[in-house]
Amino acid sequence: MPRERAVVLVSGGMDSCVTAAIAATAGEVAFLHASYGQRTQARERECFDALADHYRVTHRLVARLDHLGAMGGSSLTDAAIPVPDADLKRRDVPPTYVPFRNAQLLAAAAAWAEVLGAGSVYIGAVEEDSSGYPDCRRAFFDCFEAAIEAGTRPGTRISIRTPVIALRKSAIVKRGLELGAPLHLTWSCYREERAACGACDSCALRLRAFREAGVADPIPYLTNSGDRR
Amino acid sequence: MPRERAVVLVSGGMDSCVTAAIAATAGEVAFLHASYGQRTQARERECFDALADHYRVTHRLVARLDHLGAMGGSSLTDAAIPVPDADLKRRDVPPTYVPFRNAQLLAAAAAWAEVLGAGSVYIGAVEEDSSGYPDCRRAFFDCFEAAIEAGTRPGTRISIRTPVIALRKSAIVKRGLELGAPLHLTWSCYREERAACGACDSCALRLRAFREAGVADPIPYLTNSGDRR
Repeated sequence: MPRERAVVLVSGGMDSCVTAAIAATAGEVAFLHASYGQRTQARERECFDALADHYRVTHRLVARLDHLGAMGGSSLTDAAIPVPDADLKRRDVPPTYVPFRNAQLLAAAAAWAEVLGAGSVYIGAVEEDSSGYPDCRRAFFDCFEAAIEAGTRPGTRISIRTPVIALRKSAIVKRGLELGAPLHLTWSCYREERAACGACDSCALRLRAFREAGVADPIPYLTNSGDRR
Repeated sequence: MPRERAVVLVSGGMDSCVTAAIAATAGEVAFLHASYGQRTQARERECFDALADHYRVTHRLVARLDHLGAMGGSSLTDAAIPVPDADLKRRDVPPTYVPFRNAQLLAAAAAWAEVLGAGSVYIGAVEEDSSGYPDCRRAFFDCFEAAIEAGTRPGTRISIRTPVIALRKSAIVKRGLELGAPLHLTWSCYREERAACGACDSCALRLRAFREAGVADPIPYLTNSGDRR
């Protein structure tokens, strides 16, 4: 029986790294990355390349979605909207939400899966222990999976796999360590590219995850972020 | 009451031109175009610009989806896969199908609609009198609409409007003429950019439509395509 083939969305962050590690245990993987004008896109792209090298991935593709940056509407893509300091208790959708971003990623991944004959698309979305983005909910992925079923060639079957969606971030760290995932090659900070700020939502979630997992985060942080660690 | 605001996907073809004309009667329109490495992308882009000028559209955006071209899998984006001569009786999905292309277009349009606060996305898909692409079926659009509902901010309501989906192509021509749609500014040919080939599926459908509508197609065709008209 041939091994399963999958397209993995790899942002270069911790969650997608562990998702890629999980996918790599199941079969052959193709890695897809997107740049969309986000503040840290150069660093994320470097992480993508390093992760693809680590997993010796032959099929790798970078989608440039510059139109998302042109649309704006998010503090990640519009320099005029600041990235706020972390507030892990807020319940509304934060300004770092990039409108319907994951739909762009899934559309690209599903198209590539259809061309490659891959049976699944992996995405490292996290629903509970997250910033509350609407396009990270399993309900959205279920709808999108139905759209793939309806909008591709007859006989095409592509599942959307979200292996870390229900995990706490600390459990994602632990799972990554178990699988030997190269977490030192990942980047999560929304603001900075050379040393993580330690203060944005994404840094706060990541730092708490490593703290709860009882291990040190291997990436560099700005020295003045120490008090938040 | 404010007029409705809508994002209209404008490829530069006849169907999207008439769809834009319909949308323009209902409210304020923003025009979105995509280049994805298709053979005739320069001509289609010119038509998009001309149509946006014609309708005096302020909000206009071009998405470059070069990764679709890089994926290949279609005779429109891969020079090694020829565009076949028309076969309007074929029942399988033709090689001109670009895998899951309309999902990319809808994802971009829905994201922009969310940013702009637009309540609808118009797409000029045709289901019955068409080449049989799976991502032109209303069943697909219904699924995608549900994905938009699930994957955008709470309170966002974006309908996917397909006003020409059930029309014969000749009825689309007639509707365009009634609305004064500038069909001379459109392009449909899959192969050629200066004069339409008259022989591909898209030309054959267009030529039959004008013939059935009893009017002349205002765009230029290669002279050796006359016998097929």
